[in-house]
Amino acid sequence: MASRRGRISAKRKQGRGVPQLPYAAVNNPYPPMEVLTAGQVEKIVDGALTILETKGMRFLHAESGRLLVAAGGKEDPAQQSIRLDRAMVLEHLSWAPASFGLRARNPLHDLTIGGNNLVFTSVGGPAFCSDLDKGRRPGSYAELCDYLRLVQSINIIHQEGGGAFEAMDLPPLSRHLDLYLAQFTLLDKNVQAYALGRDRTVDCIEMTCIALATDRRELLDKPAVLGIINTNSPMQLDVPMSEAIIELASAGQVSCVTPFTLAGSMSPVSLAGTLVQQTAEVLATVTLVQCVRPGAPVIYGSFASNVDMKSGAPAMGTPEYTKMALASSQIARYLGLPSRSSNTTSSNCVDAQAAYESEMSLWGSVMGHTNLVNHAAGWLEGGLTASFEKLILDAEMLQMMAQTLEPLAVNEDELALQTIAEVPPGGHHFATEHTLARYENAFYPSMLSSRQNFESWQELGAQDTATRANRIWKTLLDEYQQPEMEASTQAALNDYVSQRKKEINQR
Amino acid sequence: MASRRGRISAKRKQGRGVPQLPYAAVNNPYPPMEVLTAGQVEKIVDGALTILETKGMRFLHAESGRLLVAAGGKEDPAQQSIRLDRAMVLEHLSWAPASFGLRARNPLHDLTIGGNNLVFTSVGGPAFCSDLDKGRRPGSYAELCDYLRLVQSINIIHQEGGGAFEAMDLPPLSRHLDLYLAQFTLLDKNVQAYALGRDRTVDCIEMTCIALATDRRELLDKPAVLGIINTNSPMQLDVPMSEAIIELASAGQVSCVTPFTLAGSMSPVSLAGTLVQQTAEVLATVTLVQCVRPGAPVIYGSFASNVDMKSGAPAMGTPEYTKMALASSQIARYLGLPSRSSNTTSSNCVDAQAAYESEMSLWGSVMGHTNLVNHAAGWLEGGLTASFEKLILDAEMLQMMAQTLEPLAVNEDELALQTIAEVPPGGHHFATEHTLARYENAFYPSMLSSRQNFESWQELGAQDTATRANRIWKTLLDEYQQPEMEASTQAALNDYVSQRKKEINQR
Repeated sequence: MASRRGRISAKRKQGRGVPQLPYAAVNNPYPPMEVLTAGQVEKIVDGALTILETKGMRFLHAESGRLLVAAGGKEDPAQQSIRLDRAMVLEHLSWAPASFGLRARNPLHDLTIGGNNLVFTSVGGPAFCSDLDKGRRPGSYAELCDYLRLVQSINIIHQEGGGAFEAMDLPPLSRHLDLYLAQFTLLDKNVQAYALGRDRTVDCIEMTCIALATDRRELLDKPAVLGIINTNSPMQLDVPMSEAIIELASAGQVSCVTPFTLAGSMSPVSLAGTLVQQTAEVLATVTLVQCVRPGAPVIYGSFASNVDMKSGAPAMGTPEYTKMALASSQIARYLGLPSRSSNTTSSNCVDAQAAYESEMSLWGSVMGHTNLVNHAAGWLEGGLTASFEKLILDAEMLQMMAQTLEPLAVNEDELALQTIAEVPPGGHHFATEHTLARYENAFYPSMLSSRQNFESWQELGAQDTATRANRIWKTLLDEYQQPEMEASTQAALNDYVSQRKKEINQR
Repeated sequence: MASRRGRISAKRKQGRGVPQLPYAAVNNPYPPMEVLTAGQVEKIVDGALTILETKGMRFLHAESGRLLVAAGGKEDPAQQSIRLDRAMVLEHLSWAPASFGLRARNPLHDLTIGGNNLVFTSVGGPAFCSDLDKGRRPGSYAELCDYLRLVQSINIIHQEGGGAFEAMDLPPLSRHLDLYLAQFTLLDKNVQAYALGRDRTVDCIEMTCIALATDRRELLDKPAVLGIINTNSPMQLDVPMSEAIIELASAGQVSCVTPFTLAGSMSPVSLAGTLVQQTAEVLATVTLVQCVRPGAPVIYGSFASNVDMKSGAPAMGTPEYTKMALASSQIARYLGLPSRSSNTTSSNCVDAQAAYESEMSLWGSVMGHTNLVNHAAGWLEGGLTASFEKLILDAEMLQMMAQTLEPLAVNEDELALQTIAEVPPGGHHFATEHTLARYENAFYPSMLSSRQNFESWQELGAQDTATRANRIWKTLLDEYQQPEMEASTQAALNDYVSQRKKEINQR
């Protein structure tokens, strides 16, 4: 990842029409906002450990259960759960690294997960895609490839999120292979696995070895694959997720353990109670990961929001979500783990609600020092849709966040006493030497915002933000350049996919 | 102002259709985000003091100049400015209070300006008004009164901003009297003065005495009037603003001193240089206030954004704006003054840009511990328009901010270990005793956000945020209840206005 210094001095990459900040690591140099006292963090973690000791967690995957019992877990037949005493949990936790690298096909896009780093990931997993032209619909593989091209083109996105939406025109059992092929050929950024079950996870690891010209031995020390592991809250882990954990951990790759809890449905209605349960689920799952391979990288993931108690519907980007993002990162730091949150909204279109709920999610993540902001760009409609226009809206908001985190320079040149003295009272600074020497790169170059006055804006069609975003993603797509790949690598990827599709079709 | 405790326990005020948080003080209990080091703050303040010593500030109002010279200022004929040495400035600064109260007609709406308090003020000063029904237009007095009724009805707005827009159907020279009459009869919150020149300021002070059943003697110790004092950056103060200062300060009322600087035009293109100039202008003006009356309350105001260097247009809600809000509050704290910022956007409609630029402005203000957030609700189009729908959008965002600042409760009840143990793995918390006892008030009750699923949302007309906001302000207006006023007070206000209009018409 380019250094902060590199970023500031780099000439801004200007496409034909879309100004962008250059690709660079983003970190928050200011202290994290801490919404819990040290004593409150201890109480929550103690509560989680108590739950694991007395109630345990249910593991539907028999092999996972056996691994935990072999390591000291106790079967609880009444709960069909495995109880884990605190000494065991804390010992396993101590083996997990506080930060680690994550390789990309292009080494300039290698990531660091941990510390003050913020990694922004594009949306992954929605069922639908949408844009202003064709509306909300099941997406095709061709549309998915376009979405991935945009993720590659947008510099502020550090990581691809494991498939922006399902390619509904492809067979479900082999669809992930086409996704991986697109991820590794259309992007040279780090890409997430589609970590649902053993085979899909193994396929990602194998194709990563081909695409990065590496092997499983090297991958053990230099991870490149990250899978999102969702628990089935409350207090349960299903078979596909457990299989993914075993494949990821045994290969030394990253399990991003993320309970999906809506306070009042999958967890207690109280925020503190939700944090207890979330922490218990993360700790139990981290223990499983460390049973598979001590030292395997894990992330403390949080997706804690609340239900709308009038309708029972999920509510996203709420004040509760913001507080939970802040508190979760704080708990993760206490446990010595990197953290993950998301950029969420319930809105069904790219309007003001989509922006303010996303901002609330992002500020909670950024102020809390969340290390991985999943779904950071593109998520709409409570995560059911990946939107082409929301991708651009989020990219603008992420860039603004990154620019806000750049410290102010305070030196003789920037203090500008001489210039202030030069300009007469009531005059202007437009034409001073100081201004002329700096104005081109003095301020954040917006990708999306309109600064037209009302009359010009009306004359030019009174375009709102979503309409401008529509034009921008089309321009970016026009300008897209596929990263180079050795012909032999491309052939090996193609061969792997063909071979695996044959196997799947023969079943 | 109701206490934090009062707020949490207060039953939520539910109108027929618009849920709201109860009226309450908002404060930020977390440490401020500090973007400058202590050494950087000192350098900026030292730079400002150096400018005042060597270049000075131009005061177009002769009486103000005489006051400053009498207190030790030195006339600089070349610059037509008055130079102020640092000892003089710092001595005058030391007389200004770090925090103070501000009375409202209803004592429950009294304000505290300073410390960790955040006061949210409605938009003041635009030339136009707008709503979705009639578009952007010059506003009438009837429309202004409707806007003021909404400001009274929206609990999260603590202070009215001195007239949301100009009532263009009224004569310019007496228009302020009709505004004051509306402010004091339609609201019982604190209202800002229309502090342009001597007469308008005096009229506000006199009508405040009538409306609050107080007199100028009591007002000296218990201020109730706040006027926004904009310098003419760079380094100049005009006659109407100086006249307002003299009337406000001599009556012991509040001057909110706010340079309006767009880096690259009215101030240096560098952020540090803009902070130097802004601080110099504030310090010179604060010195004038303290010359008029030692101890008169003042606020360090900042309105520092940047121009769009491609077009020269003002750019609002930018990362630069956010950083300047954070840095300005930090400098104000160093100087021992309360601070002021704004909620800004360049957007011409109530869309995603309006939301994300406002969020960037608000987060900078809230994280920086700004004490007075001016234009916190309703501002659109770079401040040229007061929008009825933006007022609702901002109210929602402000409420979310206030709720985010409410600390998490962590106690046995909230930790909910018993409930977590009760619910079987993979079950749900909807029907637990813990949930049922708490769900009604567990989460932030949104005023504006939609949580409908896509299909229901489409069936009900696919309303975006602005469309829903349009319905909400109409409901609030239907539900508006005018605060009671003694008939004699009303008569005295009417008499004052008639008498003054006569005087103005006889000129």
